[in-house]
Amino acid sequence: MSFSTLTPIKFLHQPTSAAWLEQALGNLNTVLLDHSHCERKAAGVALNLMFRYPSSTKLVRSLTAIAQEELQHFEQVNQILERRGIPLAPLAPPPYGAGLNKQIRRDEPDRLLDSLLVSALIEARSHERLGLLGAHCPDAELARFYRGLMASEARHYGIYWTLADEYFERSLLTDRLESLAQVESELLSTLHPAPRIHS
Amino acid sequence: MSFSTLTPIKFLHQPTSAAWLEQALGNLNTVLLDHSHCERKAAGVALNLMFRYPSSTKLVRSLTAIAQEELQHFEQVNQILERRGIPLAPLAPPPYGAGLNKQIRRDEPDRLLDSLLVSALIEARSHERLGLLGAHCPDAELARFYRGLMASEARHYGIYWTLADEYFERSLLTDRLESLAQVESELLSTLHPAPRIHS
Repeated sequence: MSFSTLTPIKFLHQPTSAAWLEQALGNLNTVLLDHSHCERKAAGVALNLMFRYPSSTKLVRSLTAIAQEELQHFEQVNQILERRGIPLAPLAPPPYGAGLNKQIRRDEPDRLLDSLLVSALIEARSHERLGLLGAHCPDAELARFYRGLMASEARHYGIYWTLADEYFERSLLTDRLESLAQVESELLSTLHPAPRIHS
Repeated sequence: MSFSTLTPIKFLHQPTSAAWLEQALGNLNTVLLDHSHCERKAAGVALNLMFRYPSSTKLVRSLTAIAQEELQHFEQVNQILERRGIPLAPLAPPPYGAGLNKQIRRDEPDRLLDSLLVSALIEARSHERLGLLGAHCPDAELARFYRGLMASEARHYGIYWTLADEYFERSLLTDRLESLAQVESELLSTLHPAPRIHS
């Protein structure tokens, strides 16, 4: 398979492997269904953060916009699933999300910092992978859809980063991001056997 | 105080008391802040139901639209809070929500039925109360805002009812709604001392 990676994404330690792209392109329907779950989960994460920090005006405002956009994408993916005749169904998640959540420390303000950076990393990885699908997917309609979403994911990781930068000192931020990014890349270093956005 | 109630809302056993309206009009800023929490919680409830029933296409589609709209209202209320110089802050909820949630049975399919009907009742009550604020609030901008939201709340209770009607037999539905509506009105029969949308 010819595999041209895009510009390496800031934040991410390791680019996505050609093996993932091959797995995803060979299982587009499953990846679409997983993508639907990812968008709903992303809306849930943004909403949960608003519940946890209801007085943080800037956070609440930014995450309201993100949650709205994730729900829009959720709706769009579900429409594509419907057109392709793929019924909505539960799907076992890959170890990626749980592995990253384990890194979130329990006490504040570490919890807020880690939550924002973990979300930033997930959005950055989604941006990279949707970009790969947008560049390599043989179905023109799907490829266009992925390219459309790419830009939002990039904006989202920017927003999570900016929020972390608003509430924490820059040096603390960059050190912690460095170690979380290391874990994030390790979690993806072995391809998970079930095709997923984050396998 | 002159108190003209609107057309009694279908579903609700007892109309809201004049005492609630007086309390709310005397504490508009607190009620606005509580309203912000209500909209965020309503989005959370819709999203949680989608997480719990990911394969129910009609439910997922309808609740995606509701969650999007609740987030829009959340944003609008927050803009009004900002214009009035009221900072976002946590607020102890009245006993209403917890009292209704206690009525939701734990085993399926009762859990789904009760969840949908409890949401329908909360939306119906919100519709009634926002309508009262829209009719009686002396601040013209706020009154207009409340009248605008009223229509959405009415649509939302229709959607929750329609979903319940989709998944359950009509007679089961009306019997259960009857007893939940009884509890709902009892929960509001004594005015809660803290001014809230559902005090």
